[in-house]
Amino acid sequence: MDTPATLVDRALSTLRRVVIEGVTPEVDAGRFAIKRCVGDRVRVQADVFADGHDQLCARLLFRRAEESDWQESPMLLIENDRWEGEFEVGELGRYVYTIMGWVDAYGTWAADLAKRAKAGADISVDALRGVELLQVARDRAKGADRQELAYAAERLRELARGNPNVAVDFAQSDELKELTNRNRDFTQDTRYERELPVVVDPPRARFGAWYEMFPRSCTTDAKRPGTFRDCATRLAYVASMGFDVLYLAPIHPIGLTERKGKNNSLTPAADDVGSPWAIGGTEGGHKSIHPQLGTLEDLKGLQRQARDLGLEVALDIAYQCSPDHPYVKEHREWFRERPDGTVQYAENPPKKYQDIYPFDFESKHAAELWEELKSIVVYWAEQGFRIFRVDNPHTKPFAFWEWLISDVKRDYPDVILLSEAFTRPRVMYQLAKLGFTQSYTYFAWKNTSAELTEYFTEMTQTPVREFFRPNLWPNTPDILNEYLQKGGRPAFAARFILAATLGASYGIYGPAFELYENRPIEAGSEEYLNSEKYEVRVWDTNNPNSLKDLITRVNAIRKASAALHGDWTLRFHPVDNEQLIAYSKVSEDFSDMILVVVNLDPRNRQSGWVSVALKDLKLGENQAYQVHDLLTDARYVWHGSINFVQLDPSILPAHIFRVHPIG
Amino acid sequence: MDTPATLVDRALSTLRRVVIEGVTPEVDAGRFAIKRCVGDRVRVQADVFADGHDQLCARLLFRRAEESDWQESPMLLIENDRWEGEFEVGELGRYVYTIMGWVDAYGTWAADLAKRAKAGADISVDALRGVELLQVARDRAKGADRQELAYAAERLRELARGNPNVAVDFAQSDELKELTNRNRDFTQDTRYERELPVVVDPPRARFGAWYEMFPRSCTTDAKRPGTFRDCATRLAYVASMGFDVLYLAPIHPIGLTERKGKNNSLTPAADDVGSPWAIGGTEGGHKSIHPQLGTLEDLKGLQRQARDLGLEVALDIAYQCSPDHPYVKEHREWFRERPDGTVQYAENPPKKYQDIYPFDFESKHAAELWEELKSIVVYWAEQGFRIFRVDNPHTKPFAFWEWLISDVKRDYPDVILLSEAFTRPRVMYQLAKLGFTQSYTYFAWKNTSAELTEYFTEMTQTPVREFFRPNLWPNTPDILNEYLQKGGRPAFAARFILAATLGASYGIYGPAFELYENRPIEAGSEEYLNSEKYEVRVWDTNNPNSLKDLITRVNAIRKASAALHGDWTLRFHPVDNEQLIAYSKVSEDFSDMILVVVNLDPRNRQSGWVSVALKDLKLGENQAYQVHDLLTDARYVWHGSINFVQLDPSILPAHIFRVHPIG
Repeated sequence: MDTPATLVDRALSTLRRVVIEGVTPEVDAGRFAIKRCVGDRVRVQADVFADGHDQLCARLLFRRAEESDWQESPMLLIENDRWEGEFEVGELGRYVYTIMGWVDAYGTWAADLAKRAKAGADISVDALRGVELLQVARDRAKGADRQELAYAAERLRELARGNPNVAVDFAQSDELKELTNRNRDFTQDTRYERELPVVVDPPRARFGAWYEMFPRSCTTDAKRPGTFRDCATRLAYVASMGFDVLYLAPIHPIGLTERKGKNNSLTPAADDVGSPWAIGGTEGGHKSIHPQLGTLEDLKGLQRQARDLGLEVALDIAYQCSPDHPYVKEHREWFRERPDGTVQYAENPPKKYQDIYPFDFESKHAAELWEELKSIVVYWAEQGFRIFRVDNPHTKPFAFWEWLISDVKRDYPDVILLSEAFTRPRVMYQLAKLGFTQSYTYFAWKNTSAELTEYFTEMTQTPVREFFRPNLWPNTPDILNEYLQKGGRPAFAARFILAATLGASYGIYGPAFELYENRPIEAGSEEYLNSEKYEVRVWDTNNPNSLKDLITRVNAIRKASAALHGDWTLRFHPVDNEQLIAYSKVSEDFSDMILVVVNLDPRNRQSGWVSVALKDLKLGENQAYQVHDLLTDARYVWHGSINFVQLDPSILPAHIFRVHPIG
Repeated sequence: MDTPATLVDRALSTLRRVVIEGVTPEVDAGRFAIKRCVGDRVRVQADVFADGHDQLCARLLFRRAEESDWQESPMLLIENDRWEGEFEVGELGRYVYTIMGWVDAYGTWAADLAKRAKAGADISVDALRGVELLQVARDRAKGADRQELAYAAERLRELARGNPNVAVDFAQSDELKELTNRNRDFTQDTRYERELPVVVDPPRARFGAWYEMFPRSCTTDAKRPGTFRDCATRLAYVASMGFDVLYLAPIHPIGLTERKGKNNSLTPAADDVGSPWAIGGTEGGHKSIHPQLGTLEDLKGLQRQARDLGLEVALDIAYQCSPDHPYVKEHREWFRERPDGTVQYAENPPKKYQDIYPFDFESKHAAELWEELKSIVVYWAEQGFRIFRVDNPHTKPFAFWEWLISDVKRDYPDVILLSEAFTRPRVMYQLAKLGFTQSYTYFAWKNTSAELTEYFTEMTQTPVREFFRPNLWPNTPDILNEYLQKGGRPAFAARFILAATLGASYGIYGPAFELYENRPIEAGSEEYLNSEKYEVRVWDTNNPNSLKDLITRVNAIRKASAALHGDWTLRFHPVDNEQLIAYSKVSEDFSDMILVVVNLDPRNRQSGWVSVALKDLKLGENQAYQVHDLLTDARYVWHGSINFVQLDPSILPAHIFRVHPIG
């Protein structure tokens, strides 16, 4: 805290009259970065004001973090001491920004002079004050500025004597205002006390459709697990549906000790394949590939083929070991010992997971452990992979992630890390603040209109959106929610459309999803019966009832609609039937406007009146507009706010309208 | 910004797993103090969480700013990682507080052990982990703690072997949890990164009724201005109405040069008395007393008499000079010169105020100027005055006020400074943040139910309340609003009751107020006709139609009602007639509950249905309760939320109900 003495000194030595506060965006007083994508404009607002009524100037300062010179961008007064400016982040990596402001003495004087002249006052003495201000600026200036200011001072003095009206006009020139401000007393500038960081990611960080699959299930015979080479066919299938990211369940050797059998059995059969998250065996660990899948070259081949089809392959990072992982022998010190001398396995008392050994992040050898764990991401990045889904990050220390992610992104600023944390809200948000590019959400458990509206308003309309990028999954290998279990195909269709339109980033775990696999292992559980986590599954992707065509259509709509490439314009529109939900997204220039209506009831036809929030779509009070259903190609003309909708889930549970204003 | 290298070091050297963020209250990341009064409890909340699922402990740390040792107070988990604690501020001056948290390794283990035992697991090995934890704590401990921990470790080991169930119970003891936490590894504690300041003021800073008057008008003959001695009678009158603070318009010598005449005339008569805000004459300046009022001794006598009647005298601080102020001759360097060599007078172009010279706070001699200005407050503080109303603080630099107030309050922590700034919202809030104890508000211009509800919700239910204490004035010598001009006596009565019940602190400018003086100098102006600013006014305080009795009654109600001693419990209750407004305040323990209903229409009887927000008054859904009108002594029994009211402004424009739950 300042002592009164230092305060006197500071207050008197240079009197910075301008206050800058209330800066947005700003995460936790600048402790964490905001997130943007390459090409975005960062819009910054602040309260900038001083005592009295003088005119002020404000500038937005920004630079790439590794550069030292600031660039400047103007800030303009919006209203009531609130100012706004913006800058573009054109490159990957980190930027910082801050704000400066100062009292515009010359501009204040010039405006006052005009007021006085307008009121018919004698301005001869007042005009001389302007001469003084120009002379003071002249004394500070160099070169051409100095000459110009000297000339202007003389000219103003002459005009004040002979031709006051012309003097007033002369004084107002933008050039003089520019000149005096450029040669002001910089020691009196107020600089905002913090420099605020920005992380700039590739566009895929904001927009993309993910498809998760188990490569070993790319087979027509469960006894013969699929290889990377077998995945080629599945690759074309996934690409044909319009997905952007193909995320593979872990591809590493799987332990034998304590291996789980089918349906999580503790007594596996000899040919049971085990969970790919039980990482590590005699064949190697996190940097090795399961021999049944193929070689590193096969994986790279898959990656090449995928890229040719517009698909990016994402890998899984799960920092845990099977008891057979080489680390367990070679680096026993990275694990905690139990009092009986055995390695401490994972637990959630009273449950025990003897097949998984967690690392001891607090061990005395944490430095080596942390470096090794980082080297796993670096290794796969060196192999050309850029997208990673990170398993259970909330069970590792926050400081570990902050260090790992910032370090990896220094060399690979285009890396995308998806945080698979399903835990308490503050922990999920903290992981996002620390650097995870995207995050799983509670979407799978938000099924009613009220729940969806509240949750998505929080994620898209509050400061949370500055650091937390949702990636919506209606299902995962761990999550088959009750709504899907009980609602059958219409439920899958509805949840798919919600995920793909509420979220610019979303994903499904397939082919279980499009084949609406909905059998739980037991009533009340969200685990799949015959889960792929523990066995090879053969999928009939040619099933004529598959959701494949709907998915293909929706992904095509997403790609063609700029409105659906981001989440920040999401707005909900009231419907008088709570089984229906309506929401819109628009492109930045409002040239593309999407209005989605979904029937959340998978069993019954539902109808109701939507109250379109016309302002959110820049529509007039009684304006007519066409709503064009991009799913069915049907077109309707709507008028004003209140309009009727009816949706039969057995046919199609949603409209995805493009809105065209008429006239 | 941290480089990755320093981050590795920090992350690894000590691993502080607990995160502390989202601390409330906190003003601008701790840049400014929150405000409290002596005896208040400061309730602090924070998000406190770690990775994983371990149990945590959190403590609130606090101390007087000038002391170095922290005191501790427990924090408890409310829900979802949000913790709360509180501490009392028992003394005037400054306090600071912060938060610390840590992972409770022993507590986590003990809880897990209980879960395992309940599930029937063999806990013999798990129990030994507890022995290890006790031993580690023992190795850190000294004295009795060391012995106790050593004993506990041995005892646990024995029980684990022979009597596991008893071991589980033994492990749960609060004493062991206390012992292990007291002897934890303190290097792993997380300390919140900021220490947050509190300013503690006297209770009068929160609750008080102010009465402003011009002492020279305490006379029965306008030709013979009143003296401090003449004020004795008026003193008894003000005290009899139940006021707490008597605020005197400036009492200093008044300049002759450019003196204003009656009704702000530029051509004064020889006997015109001038504006008391044109401070300074041949008789002296800001530390002198106008000879026509009396001597310093007379003033001190007035102060003594006032205190005997329960009234505290407040003085006016207006940092500006008449052209005749001694400073103008002696310290010409404290003023700005115009290019023609004259002193720069006050302006609001095109308006000119040649009778007022502002100080040049940016002059090269600002250091001496600032010290001198501070010495004025100190001088009057030395004379025993503690309450000051500060004129137009928004036209002086913010840094000046921050320095002056913090410096004065170091020696006089019981000083109360009321900021008379009527300017843009952010400037008003900034002055409050910088240290002003109380602030004038926009109350005078908030006349409709919607305006009042919005404005008072902002001031009492948002973080603004942490630093901004409103003091509500229905009128001042500068403000006679249109509502009062046109609404006559009923309008004055309604605005009075609003001020006195919406605001724990309020004031009126009298006797103009209670005699409902409502003539403006011209239509559209808020200036009084025959304003006391420029002439002596004789007031008939015995006028039988005076609002004196209503004021007396309301001030008595205020004093007797704990609910009205603060603003934070203010809640509005909807009424189906917008001419009526209803709101409540409650005491901390809900033993005193006040519900006010005001008819805002000064001309017509209005009736409507109030929807009492029952929860805010801790009333049940269909509960009966008595509402006792403290103004008329009438009593009604109400049931549930919806109840009927009717108010005739020609009789009384408001109910002030005390609410008594029945049964």
